[in-house]
Amino acid sequence: MAIVLGPNRYGKAETRLVHVARGPGRHALTDLNVSTSLSGDLAATHLTGDNAGVLATDSQKNTVYAFAREHGVGEPEAFAARLARHFTGALPTITAATVAIEQYGWTRLGPHSFQRDGGHTRTCRVTADGDGVTVVSGVTGLVLLNTTDSEFHGFPRERYTTLPETTDRVLATAVDARWRHLGDDADWAASWAGVRDALVEAFVDTYSYSLQQTLMAMGTRVLKRRPEVAEIRLALPNRHHLLVDLAPFGLDNPNEVFVAADRPYGLIEGTVTRDDVAAAPGQWW
Amino acid sequence: MAIVLGPNRYGKAETRLVHVARGPGRHALTDLNVSTSLSGDLAATHLTGDNAGVLATDSQKNTVYAFAREHGVGEPEAFAARLARHFTGALPTITAATVAIEQYGWTRLGPHSFQRDGGHTRTCRVTADGDGVTVVSGVTGLVLLNTTDSEFHGFPRERYTTLPETTDRVLATAVDARWRHLGDDADWAASWAGVRDALVEAFVDTYSYSLQQTLMAMGTRVLKRRPEVAEIRLALPNRHHLLVDLAPFGLDNPNEVFVAADRPYGLIEGTVTRDDVAAAPGQWW
Amino acid sequence: MAIVLGPNRYGKAETRLVHVARGPGRHALTDLNVSTSLSGDLAATHLTGDNAGVLATDSQKNTVYAFAREHGVGEPEAFAARLARHFTGALPTITAATVAIEQYGWTRLGPHSFQRDGGHTRTCRVTADGDGVTVVSGVTGLVLLNTTDSEFHGFPRERYTTLPETTDRVLATAVDARWRHLGDDADWAASWAGVRDALVEAFVDTYSYSLQQTLMAMGTRVLKRRPEVAEIRLALPNRHHLLVDLAPFGLDNPNEVFVAADRPYGLIEGTVTRDDVAAAPGQWW
Amino acid sequence: MAIVLGPNRYGKAETRLVHVARGPGRHALTDLNVSTSLSGDLAATHLTGDNAGVLATDSQKNTVYAFAREHGVGEPEAFAARLARHFTGALPTITAATVAIEQYGWTRLGPHSFQRDGGHTRTCRVTADGDGVTVVSGVTGLVLLNTTDSEFHGFPRERYTTLPETTDRVLATAVDARWRHLGDDADWAASWAGVRDALVEAFVDTYSYSLQQTLMAMGTRVLKRRPEVAEIRLALPNRHHLLVDLAPFGLDNPNEVFVAADRPYGLIEGTVTRDDVAAAPGQWW
Repeated sequence: MAIVLGPNRYGKAETRLVHVARGPGRHALTDLNVSTSLSGDLAATHLTGDNAGVLATDSQKNTVYAFAREHGVGEPEAFAARLARHFTGALPTITAATVAIEQYGWTRLGPHSFQRDGGHTRTCRVTADGDGVTVVSGVTGLVLLNTTDSEFHGFPRERYTTLPETTDRVLATAVDARWRHLGDDADWAASWAGVRDALVEAFVDTYSYSLQQTLMAMGTRVLKRRPEVAEIRLALPNRHHLLVDLAPFGLDNPNEVFVAADRPYGLIEGTVTRDDVAAAPGQWW
Repeated sequence: MAIVLGPNRYGKAETRLVHVARGPGRHALTDLNVSTSLSGDLAATHLTGDNAGVLATDSQKNTVYAFAREHGVGEPEAFAARLARHFTGALPTITAATVAIEQYGWTRLGPHSFQRDGGHTRTCRVTADGDGVTVVSGVTGLVLLNTTDSEFHGFPRERYTTLPETTDRVLATAVDARWRHLGDDADWAASWAGVRDALVEAFVDTYSYSLQQTLMAMGTRVLKRRPEVAEIRLALPNRHHLLVDLAPFGLDNPNEVFVAADRPYGLIEGTVTRDDVAAAPGQWW
Repeated sequence: MAIVLGPNRYGKAETRLVHVARGPGRHALTDLNVSTSLSGDLAATHLTGDNAGVLATDSQKNTVYAFAREHGVGEPEAFAARLARHFTGALPTITAATVAIEQYGWTRLGPHSFQRDGGHTRTCRVTADGDGVTVVSGVTGLVLLNTTDSEFHGFPRERYTTLPETTDRVLATAVDARWRHLGDDADWAASWAGVRDALVEAFVDTYSYSLQQTLMAMGTRVLKRRPEVAEIRLALPNRHHLLVDLAPFGLDNPNEVFVAADRPYGLIEGTVTRDDVAAAPGQWW
Repeated sequence: MAIVLGPNRYGKAETRLVHVARGPGRHALTDLNVSTSLSGDLAATHLTGDNAGVLATDSQKNTVYAFAREHGVGEPEAFAARLARHFTGALPTITAATVAIEQYGWTRLGPHSFQRDGGHTRTCRVTADGDGVTVVSGVTGLVLLNTTDSEFHGFPRERYTTLPETTDRVLATAVDARWRHLGDDADWAASWAGVRDALVEAFVDTYSYSLQQTLMAMGTRVLKRRPEVAEIRLALPNRHHLLVDLAPFGLDNPNEVFVAADRPYGLIEGTVTRDDVAAAPGQWW
């Protein structure tokens, strides 16, 4: 028996990059959080501390900033792909690179003034290796709520079941979605907005009998509308809104007054995919 | 010498209330975080654990939910004032009550569908006692950024000064503002939106030589435009955006690539007031 | 009527300072988060952006680091006082300075190895002005729990009261305490440890009929034991542990299985003081 | 082409369970955060909202509380395994269950008094399916620091490299470790403490030329000392402590005054394994 090094990677997490493009009379703002991660033949540094094959994480950070000046930033998927391709092979030891980006939105207030959007965050993760480039886009923190058109019943009643059945409940969730693209080139801005709109519209339109059904409807809507997407993975916490019992105060509560509960919460996770695409190698999300 | 009880208060913090008003074909949603705090003659419970004069914090929570059904919710200032008036005198021991509310915004997506705004939070704090009702409104987490029209120079250079002077910097802040109303009645929705707009517009319009100057301009704009406001207190963190030195990579950086720094940060705090209004009794914000 | 500048201050928040004292064969570690805040005659920068009287917040940060090298760090109260005295009068405009420090604890693992304590944080806030120096020490995040010896009953039952009375409940809180010293010199390390121990011991020893009673006992214990303390202010959230109803599953629950609730929570705040000390000018905590 | 449901699961996240064992004259406290997740043949609820095969997440929560009373809690691995075995097969549709637990530590202050430890959290994740039970234990938030015995040099200098080489730096990290057990039965308390001690001791003892080398040493120490562990996965953020340049103030800085930086940070991830054990099916951590 021997003790050996298994899968490993390293990189620089959360490099905060703000880029200002100064057009005449009008500035554009891009606000990113960039994390890089490299892998390959890194046994030497693990076993002996020989760093000859290690591209320092500080250098990875520097590259993020330098690339923003040399090439501009643009859409996060394209910026991530450019970085991932650069890192792969930057040293003979580095055979794969993943670049993950969070993009924070800002609303324009004037030619050079902006207000930060607080809601959902756009994300992407791009991996480059000898086999090519895989692009995954995503959104997180997109909080949606329907005040009706949600039922939950028909679940089995066993020893530990006390939940009443309901034919009218509040349904709320914070969408965390990631979708894998079929190719490594697209109109990333239009694609991302199209997926987000499809998610929102499917949530709004679906008369729901379970959050799983809503999840499936959301994923299906995305794949139907966006041919560039191979598959999508959704994690939907069920943000419970509990009806308050007002009877002790001589009051009814016709689905009007709720507690927004913190914990615990249901968590529904699922993927929706096309049956004619090649499977991703391993867990892609 | 004796050891004695000094100022004290107690209450229920962070009662999460979601209210759905079910109009025909269209629902309205109100999402609040309500904290109540009572004070008065509470020596007995402190000294002997005699709770005869204590309105249980659980009962305070119940009152929040019951009032939402009995009276509706409406604007947070009005809901807080109704609660504060109720608690004051609910028991002979309770001579003052403060109700603080955070309101989370939601954007309508359909007749009964909503998306939560992630940005700034509307706040209020209403205090009732024998002298009447004081209403303070506020906003927190309103993140604003100008990519230019900000300079910082002319500060003294002493032994520990290394900061270069600049005639063009990024200026960003997360506005935390609270303003005291002259009266206890107003069109609260219009007043709040008017103050928020004045804050945003003054930030955008001001050519800034210091964040203090911007603070003063923001406060002044509010007081000029909103006669119902007696004074305003602003806390403005200076969210530093540091220019990256790209010279080691043979690149210039013409105010284009920045690090958004986490810590430390400047923090500018100030009040702007009218010179002809009665001062608030003690710290009002 | 005119619109005028009211109370104001500015400074550098959250300067993270780690100091290593390298003794022979043994290193000592001090880990601080330092915030400075200056006030005085600062109208010029607010009104016209004239910064001639502004000690740049960047210089304040530099001073924190330079003083750590020039004078060492030692106890946070002493370090804060040294900084506050320096800033007051560093420019003619600066007539008062407050330095607030959080200290994070580390446990020694070896001559130069440490493990960070995750629990409570030691705090202090020192203000210097023309009248002298005021020192406030504190602790935050000290989470204590008694599984018994806590009752709560005798509170009035009014329309909105549903809480059952109890003669045996779990009592838990996260102590946030600040205490004002009579003087500006003390054995700060011994004083702080003595106060913390008094708080903990009083919580453990007190058979409680209300959290207010426990608060009073904790404050009283501190003042009895520590003559250098003028007064203490405690904020004690009531971290509710709710007994789970297991009857639907045919089980009793003899005070054994609890939900640790997040929100809402009771919040008990109070001061305990000596009746023969001069009152602090304004809110000191 | 068809759009189909891919991998999915659902459950109840973050059920907060506090258990008090009331022995004569002495109580014991267990504080857990339990998340359950079920999978199997769940197509019906996704496709049509038919919930006949869905064990409601509310029932999962109830089961956690009921089991705590019926069977006690004990070590988290054993409690999780009991729950996971119960859920698997509780309905014909449910063929696999994962139970993840965080345990918060408390230090005893008296027979029925406790102080919460704030530092690291003990974790476990147990999966049951037709093939048996897999137990993964872990620790998160264990922050360690060496003030010396860490070098970093010999890394290649390419276009974007500016980091100076160093032969003496502060090395700090927040250990996030998970380890897979060979069997499903062990003295869990002793095993966990043994692994934690091995991690800490290896960090302290290793003269480090890279954080990767330290990671390998930590994993190797665990596997050498704990025969019940098959493999371990470590994620080690490099909490950078940057030496402050005090030269502008006429001061040297002999490795004494540091900035504790927030972002960005290096992130080193790796597994250490035995070469004679069966590989886990898929990503096990």
